Order: sequence, then structure tokens, then C-alpha cells
Amino acid sequence: MANINRQITLAARPVSYPKLSDFKLVSAPIPTPDAGQVLVRTIYLSVDPYMRGRMNARASYAAYVEIGEVMIGSIVGEVNSSNHSDFQEGDIVEGSLGWQEYALSDGDNLRKVDPTLAPISTAIGVLGMPGMTAYFGLLEITQPQPGETVVVSGAAGAVGSLVGQIAKIKGCRVVGIAGSDRKIDYVTNELGFDAAFNYKTTEDYGEKLQELCPDGLDVYFDNVGGAITDAVFPLMNVKARVSICGQISQYNLENPELGPRFLWHLITKRAKIEGFLVFEFADKHDEGRRQMAEWIKAGKLKYREDIVEGFENAPAAFIGMLKGDNIGKRLIKVSDQ
Amino acid sequence: MANINRQITLAARPVSYPKLSDFKLVSAPIPTPDAGQVLVRTIYLSVDPYMRGRMNARASYAAYVEIGEVMIGSIVGEVNSSNHSDFQEGDIVEGSLGWQEYALSDGDNLRKVDPTLAPISTAIGVLGMPGMTAYFGLLEITQPQPGETVVVSGAAGAVGSLVGQIAKIKGCRVVGIAGSDRKIDYVTNELGFDAAFNYKTTEDYGEKLQELCPDGLDVYFDNVGGAITDAVFPLMNVKARVSICGQISQYNLENPELGPRFLWHLITKRAKIEGFLVFEFADKHDEGRRQMAEWIKAGKLKYREDIVEGFENAPAAFIGMLKGDNIGKRLIKVSDQ
Repeated sequence: MANINRQITLAARPVSYPKLSDFKLVSAPIPTPDAGQVLVRTIYLSVDPYMRGRMNARASYAAYVEIGEVMIGSIVGEVNSSNHSDFQEGDIVEGSLGWQEYALSDGDNLRKVDPTLAPISTAIGVLGMPGMTAYFGLLEITQPQPGETVVVSGAAGAVGSLVGQIAKIKGCRVVGIAGSDRKIDYVTNELGFDAAFNYKTTEDYGEKLQELCPDGLDVYFDNVGGAITDAVFPLMNVKARVSICGQISQYNLENPELGPRFLWHLITKRAKIEGFLVFEFADKHDEGRRQMAEWIKAGKLKYREDIVEGFENAPAAFIGMLKGDNIGKRLIKVSDQ
Repeated sequence: MANINRQITLAARPVSYPKLSDFKLVSAPIPTPDAGQVLVRTIYLSVDPYMRGRMNARASYAAYVEIGEVMIGSIVGEVNSSNHSDFQEGDIVEGSLGWQEYALSDGDNLRKVDPTLAPISTAIGVLGMPGMTAYFGLLEITQPQPGETVVVSGAAGAVGSLVGQIAKIKGCRVVGIAGSDRKIDYVTNELGFDAAFNYKTTEDYGEKLQELCPDGLDVYFDNVGGAITDAVFPLMNVKARVSICGQISQYNLENPELGPRFLWHLITKRAKIEGFLVFEFADKHDEGRRQMAEWIKAGKLKYREDIVEGFENAPAAFIGMLKGDNIGKRLIKVSDQ
């Protein structure tokens, strides 16, 4: 290896959607692990919607990225050299090591990945954060019951595509909302959703939802927010549960959007809306991962990876994902396994 | 008794706030109970915010009132004559018998009231629907813990004034929001709320809330909605719980109001918003009533009744309540006990 570690740093705070110039590709020497440290070589880098929030200088549940800092993000990689008793050269690991080709870790933020179980890329996908988000955000927050109608927005994305399938496994009727005909085709014909619609070619979301959910809806899993979510609330059944996973329609707005007030629906429907973060369920992630892996093996759960080649393409791939270019989990292939 | 039963019917569907001309005072003969029926003489009539919703021709959790029909509402009254084995002349009962001086009942919607326990008016107040709403809407929906900060809107009303006191009993810090200096004085100096502010004389609700809730808020009990509620969401702590009891600011709007979208707060704070109706907890109402009566006896729970004299004044009293004229539970004294 040439002794160069390419990194992508935050160059400027984005206004609305990030631009390529908000990122900077820089080079640094590959670091050397001290005692207790591990050097990891990145194989796959994950790009996820939550990263947009960390680019703003606004306090949230986690620290934001400073200008000039390496962008935060999870990777799957190989241990290149180790001075840590728990890790050996060649181990495949997953962790939040940032947008860079090599990273040091003290091991605390690393999880060993079993490469015989599934392709290692799944450690940042269906068997990683997005998978656990779908699994616990649906099952723990909304407790879907057989025969219930579940609506999921962002239906073809890394999380939504899994949510709909898990709901199907649980015996629910599933209706998806996504932003292209290809996505609608994917979720209905490949993933087995009962119905779906393309919000970009639908004029009246409420009318369309009513058509696709003749018995109303019992569960709504929201990745998107905005006008799509506005259309869902009036159709909630009594005791409906809404899981707020993401609000991607709002992340790139400079001025907060106004929307119709809807809290009175919660009274008449005795309904519940709850937000969550996947790390809340950290002590159950292993259990979730086992179940998801089992469903994959049994052919009940499908996943698609949208792999962009080349570390330098991460910013464009990330921006495209925020705009909905991807079907399934978007990730960056940084180096060979 | 003269054989005349005065009734108040719905004369017109209100546009925005109801007007006196939306109601009509009519006279009918006092009916005679058939086999299995009870004739009840109204002593107190309740006026409550939910009645506004029933005046619209819009499906909700309960049927709306038709034009020309007697307005719905709960009363406390005395059994005047009975052909029902469970009820005897002189029994004090509570039930949803409508805005009228006399009503027939088959007994299904009647609850016997023990007049030795507390003034009978409390059967439609602190020991009736408003009391149970406060008790279960706070305790079941939000599970307040000692040391937590609880904010309640509509703080001086029939429900809010009890919510704040129950939260104090549970060891919480309580901040109220209400619409007059008299109300603020009442909840802080008489009821023991830790702090409160008059939203009608406060410019920046968010700033004021931040000042009064230096540690943020863990529970919000909402009777009001609108701009007050908008100001609460940004101050929620992690794992905050919001109980949506009412949205009185919205009931008299002809055009649904827009407000800032806030669902993303639920994600970062892992917070929950839940609506409820008091009848969900019907099988526990006796338990709640016992506990409330005990707290009243122990001097821990105070209640105030805002009694308007004269059946014919019910429409004006109701309209005034919707506009926030009352402190505590507003009711109409229709006849002597």
C-alpha cells in the first residue's frame, strides 16, 4: 500500500441539498496503531440520510461534524494491523470510522463481522444499522398484528424496503410510497408489497391512499415526512401507531415547512406517534440480526444493494441518495475485500 | 311541577365560534316513563369542549347532533319517577341525557351518585368525566415520574387544573399555561403549580417556556394545541411523553391552521405523542374516582366549580367556556337539589 490515506472532510455547511463543493477530498499519511489500537482498511462505506443532519451546526442527539473534520459514517473493513488483543489482522469489522480509506480505532466502536454468514457489505445494510432500524422501528414501536394495514414511506429505500417485508412476514397488508415507477415495480413485484404508489406522479395522495387502504391504516412507518405524511393521518384507524424513523423531505429545507395541524386526529383515533433511534435497541441488535439472517436464508426477506464504486464518488453518491436515486441500500465500494 | 320540559336544541351548525342563534330553547311535555324507564330531573348540566365537535356534521368517534335535536351533554339529576328496578325516586344519577330539564333513560347510560361522598355537582366534574380525563390522561398516557417537569396547557380549566395537581402529587415540577392573570394566580397560588404564564400577554412562548423549564420538559399534557403546543416540542427532553387531550384552539377554526412541522423532534428526542378518549379507561373509572376522592379528602387536590345559574343560560355559558371565561369546571345549575 502507498502510505496515503484519502479522507473526505466537510468543507462547508450545506445550504439546502449538499453540493460537491461542501466536501473536500484530502490526503493524509496512513496512521500507525499505538498500543491498544487497531488500523482498519475500509472496504465499504455507508451513506445514510442521518448524515445530512450532522452537517448542520445544530445540536442533536449526536455531535455535528466540524468544518475540516472527516465526515462521519459507518464502514465495513479489514483489520490491517492490530495492537488490540480482541482483533487480529484480517478480521472483518464494522464501525463508525468515517469517510476515509484507513482509520484507527481503540476497538470500542468496532463490531466483528462473520464473513461466512452473509456478504460483508450487509454489515452496514440489512444486517447493520438500516436493518436494525427497520426491525426494531417497526416491531417494537408499532407492534403490527396479522391482518392490519401497514403503510411505509420511503418504501424502496434501505430501511423502507425491509419494513414492508417484515410487515408481510408478520401477516400484514402492506402499502408502500416511493418516488419512481421503478421503485413501485420493485416493492410490489419483487418484494411482495400488496400495493404502492409513486408520489411524484400522484396528484392527490389522500385519495390514492384511500383507494389503496380501503380499510384505513393501522400502522404507518415514516421515513419521509412532509406532504406524504400529512395525507396519512386522516386515514388512521382507531389505535393506529406511527413510527417516525426519518423525515428526509425536511432535511434539506432552509426554512422549516408549514403543514396542516393534525394532532386532533390523534384524539379521535386514540393514536400514537413515536420517534426512535436505532441505538435504543442496541442490546437487542444481535437478536434482530439473527432473525433477519434467518429470514434471508429462508427466502422470506430480500435486500438490494446499490453499490457505487470508488471512494472519491462518495459525496455524489450521498447527494443522490438524499434525492432518492437509490433502490435499496446505497453504499460505496472503497477497496477490494 | 308544571308539565313543561324545556330543552335546548341545535338550531344551526356553527361557523367558527357558536352564536346564541345556533341554539334554540324549546318546550315539550315532560315525558312519562314506560316499563323499564326512569324519568330524571336535571339539577346540573355540564358544558365541555368536546361538545363543539358534535355540532359539526363531521364523523368523529361519536355521532354528531342533528339540527333540531337536543344538544348532547352530561347531567347530574334526581330520579323523578322510576319503572326500572335499579333506580328509585330520589336517587341521584349522572348520565349523558342532554340539554334538557327532564329526560327519560332506560338506565344503561345512568350511573348512581353517592350524595354523601361529595357535592353531587362533582359527578360531572372532579369525580366525573373531566376528573377521569385528567387522571388517566396524565397517569396512563405519560407515566410521570418524580422530579420530572410536566407542562400543562389549559391549566386553569376543568381538566388542566387537576392534571397539574396530580402531577404535583406524583412529585413532578409543574408549569401551567393559561389565558389570564387571574388564572395564572389561581394555578400558582391556590393549586401549587411551580410556575405558569399567561399566553395572552406573552410574546415569545418558546422563550418563556425555556425560562420556566430550565431543564426542559418530560411530559406535556395538551388541552389546547396551536401555537402554544408548537412552542413546547422544541423543549422536549429525551423520552418525553405528550398526552393529547384536547385541541381547543382548533375547534372553532373554519379553515385548518398550518403550523411548523415538528415530527423530526420526535426522532432526536425519541419522544411519543398519544391521543386518548376518557371512555377507553371506563373499566378503571371507579378506581380513579376513589383515588381522586381520597386526595380531595386529604386536602391534596382542590377543585373549583364555575356555576352558571339558569338552564336558559347554557348556550352563553358554553360559548364563554370555549373562549376561556371559566376557571375550573363550568356547569349550569338547572334546578335545586
